[in-house]
Amino acid sequence: MKKSRVAIQGGPASFHDAAARQLLPGMPLEVAHCDTFSSLCVALQQGETDAAVMAIENTLAGSLLLNYSLLQEHRLHITAELWLSIDQNLMALPGQRIADIRTVSSHPVALAQCKGFLQRHPHLQPQVTHDTADSAKAIQEQGLMATAAIAGKAAAELYGLEILAENIADSLQNHTRFLLLQREQPEVPADADKAIVVFRKPLHTSTLTLLLSLLQKHQVELTLLQTLPAGEGRAQLVAEVEAPHVSHLQQAIAQVRPLVEDLQVLGILKQAARPQTSTVTKETAAIL
Amino acid sequence: MKKSRVAIQGGPASFHDAAARQLLPGMPLEVAHCDTFSSLCVALQQGETDAAVMAIENTLAGSLLLNYSLLQEHRLHITAELWLSIDQNLMALPGQRIADIRTVSSHPVALAQCKGFLQRHPHLQPQVTHDTADSAKAIQEQGLMATAAIAGKAAAELYGLEILAENIADSLQNHTRFLLLQREQPEVPADADKAIVVFRKPLHTSTLTLLLSLLQKHQVELTLLQTLPAGEGRAQLVAEVEAPHVSHLQQAIAQVRPLVEDLQVLGILKQAARPQTSTVTKETAAIL
Repeated sequence: MKKSRVAIQGGPASFHDAAARQLLPGMPLEVAHCDTFSSLCVALQQGETDAAVMAIENTLAGSLLLNYSLLQEHRLHITAELWLSIDQNLMALPGQRIADIRTVSSHPVALAQCKGFLQRHPHLQPQVTHDTADSAKAIQEQGLMATAAIAGKAAAELYGLEILAENIADSLQNHTRFLLLQREQPEVPADADKAIVVFRKPLHTSTLTLLLSLLQKHQVELTLLQTLPAGEGRAQLVAEVEAPHVSHLQQAIAQVRPLVEDLQVLGILKQAARPQTSTVTKETAAIL
Repeated sequence: MKKSRVAIQGGPASFHDAAARQLLPGMPLEVAHCDTFSSLCVALQQGETDAAVMAIENTLAGSLLLNYSLLQEHRLHITAELWLSIDQNLMALPGQRIADIRTVSSHPVALAQCKGFLQRHPHLQPQVTHDTADSAKAIQEQGLMATAAIAGKAAAELYGLEILAENIADSLQNHTRFLLLQREQPEVPADADKAIVVFRKPLHTSTLTLLLSLLQKHQVELTLLQTLPAGEGRAQLVAEVEAPHVSHLQQAIAQVRPLVEDLQVLGILKQAARPQTSTVTKETAAIL
């Protein structure tokens, strides 16, 4: 069976890696590890891979606005999405305890998400790296004692590290949404109920009012609206919308198109199950 | 004359530092340098400073969504805004030429903004640091030869470095918007023509349609709308609006308030002059 080539951002056992395997299940994958979101788009656009997987939103950090601009510039197509729960864990070479650890290395976002844990263990010195999973890899490869990484469980498994503390992020509401990207526009699936579009000015209150009344007429709900960075020739707004049936989406898009400039459909797809929006925080969970 | 204490993110001669001096002109300043936007908010909220200056948007990178959430959480007030042109320059110890340089250190965002320049000079090895101006400081303090920093001109001046190449960013459209923050709600200025508000659900198409028609009635133009990260109890949308007179803003806000949950006015202020939206890129500018 021929392997499917997929570009991701980050290394083996990263969260992108896990997302790729869930978005392309049951398929032998050849994963191309890219340093940046930009190089990931180039790899797919130039035919080096068959697909790409890109993070677009995190419940704690918000939308990755520049990634929408990249999708528009590279004319890529969104064909599926996935919400993945992000678990941050403290891991080190086997046989050590938290008291033995001095340095904790990870990506700055992961370190920031575990701020409370680090404050409760003031003997741990944070050290910034470029990737969560690669921090775990460095500990294994260099046999680093007294050093721990913050990363997903998959990284501990891959690099033979022991988990010293599980789920150490400040909030349990840490979920990232990933998009599956393809170079060619696929056929719209019959069960599609979501569209992601970008468009340019005019952003006048009157135009937006008209635009929204059109959406309402077609039972289309706006679920996300963002203003994008105003680069030259770029889209300026991105909208994610949902509707009971794909025909509602297509009719609404056709009627909205003349009201705005340069409307581009990034994808018409089946929406992914949203993460549970439990309001139980780490503290209340401990009490319950 | 008593010095005014202002918290900024970054070190002396950083872009935040320049923004603070323009937002508080003719005032002797005592600047508190904070590592993160979060600690900047805490410094102001706890009364360690009288004001704070915070970046909120860059023309190339887009809105800093988490900063709106921080303003809401810390109940701070926006009293003014400023657009600052961001110039990136290559600087080193005096007497060296570009051919003598091997390492170029700067903040990852600045390095990314100068990608074209670095590609045209492949003998330069980028090195990631946490701040543009502090990269210049390190060169002076440690007497580093064959090393250059990418930073604003003010950093070259402060640390006695020579500029080897001016304005090396890929795009000349590099502007950052900064907000002046205060702890107490000030009196609304009579010439205010802009409001920044955050609010929570419901984000239904029908509610938004009604909300926009209210804005239209009061001649209020929506200039920016962003969906914020869905943290617990946080605002979920931020809107920036402009109107010919402050009374229009106040009436529109009063009528919109019952339609949404937890509307919070972050600021009513005089809008800053927008940067020139010339479409002259570096390449065409060189031809002209």
